[in-house]
Amino acid sequence: MKSHIINRLAKIVGEENVCTDPAEIFCYSRDSTPFQYFADVIVRPAKTTGVSEVMKLANENRIPVYPRGSGTSAAGSPLPVKGGILIDLTRMNQILSFDEENLQVVMEPGVICDDLNEFLKDYGYYFPPDPASSSVATIGGMVANNSAGNRAIKYGKTKDWILWLEAVLPSGEIIHTGSDTLKSVSGYDLTKLLCGSEGTLAVFTKIGMRVQPLPETYKTAMFLFDDLNRAGEAIVKARSSGVVPCAMEFLDKLTISTTADYAGLTLPDCEALLLIETDGIEAAAEKELKIITGIVKKMSPKEWKIAQDEEERNTLWVARKSAYAALARCSITTTMEDLSVPISKIPEALKRIQKIPERVGNQIRVATFGHAGDGNLHPTFLYDERISEQQEAFYKALNIIYDEVALALGGSITGEHGVGIIRKDFVEKEHGSVEMALMKGIKRVFDPSNILNPGKGKPWGSTGEP
Amino acid sequence: MKSHIINRLAKIVGEENVCTDPAEIFCYSRDSTPFQYFADVIVRPAKTTGVSEVMKLANENRIPVYPRGSGTSAAGSPLPVKGGILIDLTRMNQILSFDEENLQVVMEPGVICDDLNEFLKDYGYYFPPDPASSSVATIGGMVANNSAGNRAIKYGKTKDWILWLEAVLPSGEIIHTGSDTLKSVSGYDLTKLLCGSEGTLAVFTKIGMRVQPLPETYKTAMFLFDDLNRAGEAIVKARSSGVVPCAMEFLDKLTISTTADYAGLTLPDCEALLLIETDGIEAAAEKELKIITGIVKKMSPKEWKIAQDEEERNTLWVARKSAYAALARCSITTTMEDLSVPISKIPEALKRIQKIPERVGNQIRVATFGHAGDGNLHPTFLYDERISEQQEAFYKALNIIYDEVALALGGSITGEHGVGIIRKDFVEKEHGSVEMALMKGIKRVFDPSNILNPGKGKPWGSTGEP
Repeated sequence: MKSHIINRLAKIVGEENVCTDPAEIFCYSRDSTPFQYFADVIVRPAKTTGVSEVMKLANENRIPVYPRGSGTSAAGSPLPVKGGILIDLTRMNQILSFDEENLQVVMEPGVICDDLNEFLKDYGYYFPPDPASSSVATIGGMVANNSAGNRAIKYGKTKDWILWLEAVLPSGEIIHTGSDTLKSVSGYDLTKLLCGSEGTLAVFTKIGMRVQPLPETYKTAMFLFDDLNRAGEAIVKARSSGVVPCAMEFLDKLTISTTADYAGLTLPDCEALLLIETDGIEAAAEKELKIITGIVKKMSPKEWKIAQDEEERNTLWVARKSAYAALARCSITTTMEDLSVPISKIPEALKRIQKIPERVGNQIRVATFGHAGDGNLHPTFLYDERISEQQEAFYKALNIIYDEVALALGGSITGEHGVGIIRKDFVEKEHGSVEMALMKGIKRVFDPSNILNPGKGKPWGSTGEP
Repeated sequence: MKSHIINRLAKIVGEENVCTDPAEIFCYSRDSTPFQYFADVIVRPAKTTGVSEVMKLANENRIPVYPRGSGTSAAGSPLPVKGGILIDLTRMNQILSFDEENLQVVMEPGVICDDLNEFLKDYGYYFPPDPASSSVATIGGMVANNSAGNRAIKYGKTKDWILWLEAVLPSGEIIHTGSDTLKSVSGYDLTKLLCGSEGTLAVFTKIGMRVQPLPETYKTAMFLFDDLNRAGEAIVKARSSGVVPCAMEFLDKLTISTTADYAGLTLPDCEALLLIETDGIEAAAEKELKIITGIVKKMSPKEWKIAQDEEERNTLWVARKSAYAALARCSITTTMEDLSVPISKIPEALKRIQKIPERVGNQIRVATFGHAGDGNLHPTFLYDERISEQQEAFYKALNIIYDEVALALGGSITGEHGVGIIRKDFVEKEHGSVEMALMKGIKRVFDPSNILNPGKGKPWGSTGEP
């Protein structure tokens, strides 16, 4: 990168917030995928105006820009594929206001999800989406990816909670989508279009979010199955019970054995674990859990139990939320997939996923867990990327996951992690060429010079070279 | 319209489904606004392919196209401002499938909202959005407007329930956005962009919708206030009670006296009525209503009661849902507005609205009701459009509503009715020129020749003349 650009960046954000040190650039070169790309320069703005000026400079000079929060992506979304400027937004981490009467919290994009909920707890509120990475993930990243997590089954995704966005366009212009009201249908819904656009349309600098009152209580049950298919059927039946639980999570055998160890939970040998939770007023949460438990018990679980206190509940959730981290200890490379299927197809999807290692010459292992109640599964492949046979087997497995599981069963290639780099060649298979042309057209409206996140999943990265 | 076009339309949808009879065209010339526009021809396709061929023909010949359901719009949205082809979609009124395991119903756009809920009731499910026009409104129209209604406070808007759309582009190409899964973040969210686009981007021909289990029970309370401001404050306080009710409706004095008469309800003289409802498991709905009631009672209502049975509850809801129809009997012209404001601004908004008649020379009256828990109010103006002083006063009142109430209080010019014709000159005031340019760009991507709903609210109607 030319020194006059670096100098101008230093003038915008301050010299101490511009970095070209290879060691630091290395730190920003990965997320939780096996990909690695290096930015030319890291900038750390503290204000919207700084972001705006950086974008203007980048746009004038056709320099690629990659905004980034904590980099917890499992899709390669924050990686600087074409070099250029990486904007680290973690300095913009202030909760700016909480207006209890309007049930609205306003914050900068770098606020950590768990920090936000810690703050809201004192007022009796929370932000329901709950990714496993909530202790690290930034709200800005969650908006960019439309993150979901454990409670989406009842409370929806990040998108459902965002009232408005202050965002900087590639031109440097600042827009303020949506409004402070809970309800508006004025014009096209730019807020919902930006949520989930993976940093390809604009950089978020302020976020207005509605919040939910904390439930009076949670009731949590765990079921162990010694048959994978029966566990799958239990999910299907529990979902049409007339009760909407606030979580319905699944862990397979390999995940259970790995995470139980990690979380200090003693569990008997089994093929599948379901974690089901209801919430709300005590009497309702209890009755609803009873209804679901009655249905799941008919599928003959090997064992089941209801968490007797908050500590037991926490242990179960630590086991679930640490699934990916625990698996990552078992292997050189750990790549988490993110397909979603219609609920009724879960048993078949699980069956097909289990057969994948055998189909690719047993070069890789697979552990599956996920938000089963939404049909959202995270088959996680364990292998060694340095061994070419294993690397090849992994790419074959990916193709099977997308073509023969997700799309063949009427599902989607990504339930909550996004397209990023890893799924970029599969988006068109899901949407077809006409929709892809519409998406490319939208990208062109926002970013005619393709400076925001170029090189990422089609259609967004492919409207021209910066 | 040239006869060769009429002949080709007849070949596409059958001669009996093409109509140029002025009497019929007159019937399609209004919605519930005072506007009136005449199409050149009405076509009534029964299939997606028919819609596609009509669009292709229209696009080739640059003929404006106006899709329409039941025409219950309160914004002028279905009116054929530039003549051309009006597509009546009410023949496409089949519920195509219900998949209980996947909690998904698939239907054509002409299905009536109440008919859908009657169908789903047998399975124990429903589609929560509940506009006052639910006995007439089509699901296609509800998707086009992102309709909301009484239950949006807890269950969201139409958009929140739509999984996928089959839609015909102006080019005649057919797209299928979204998927059968509950969760997908693959590509830009075209489904949510199309919902609420008011028929300016595509014509919906099939709709995939998730459904909600019916609650075990409802608990309903009515509060009468002899002070408008205290009623407003009660709404604000009830909303930050930690309980999310499934309805929180407001009626002012003029609305109460008119609708009580219409619904056969005997009520004492009062300034405001609040209707608050909770739902769910019996014990929870009861406890939640008790919490809210405790808060509202502190604001000294003149009277309050809890509906003792389903019949009492129904009477209250008939009064609320017939508000607009009842008011329409009181005056030659009745125009319902649709602003929304942050919850805390409701008392101030009510005060400003009440003063409007005086500010415009007492030429018009105003009755206000609405979904107060969402900050969404429907000030309804009663006047005689044939008297020019009254007509002028109405337009002055509109300007006050948008500029000095909705936007001045940080709200939106339309909470749920859409831009249509009536609000077309105010969209830019809410969003500013940069966002308007983005919206125009999006319109151009979908409809480069501007044949879908031209002449409607900027930005959509203004990308060129067809």
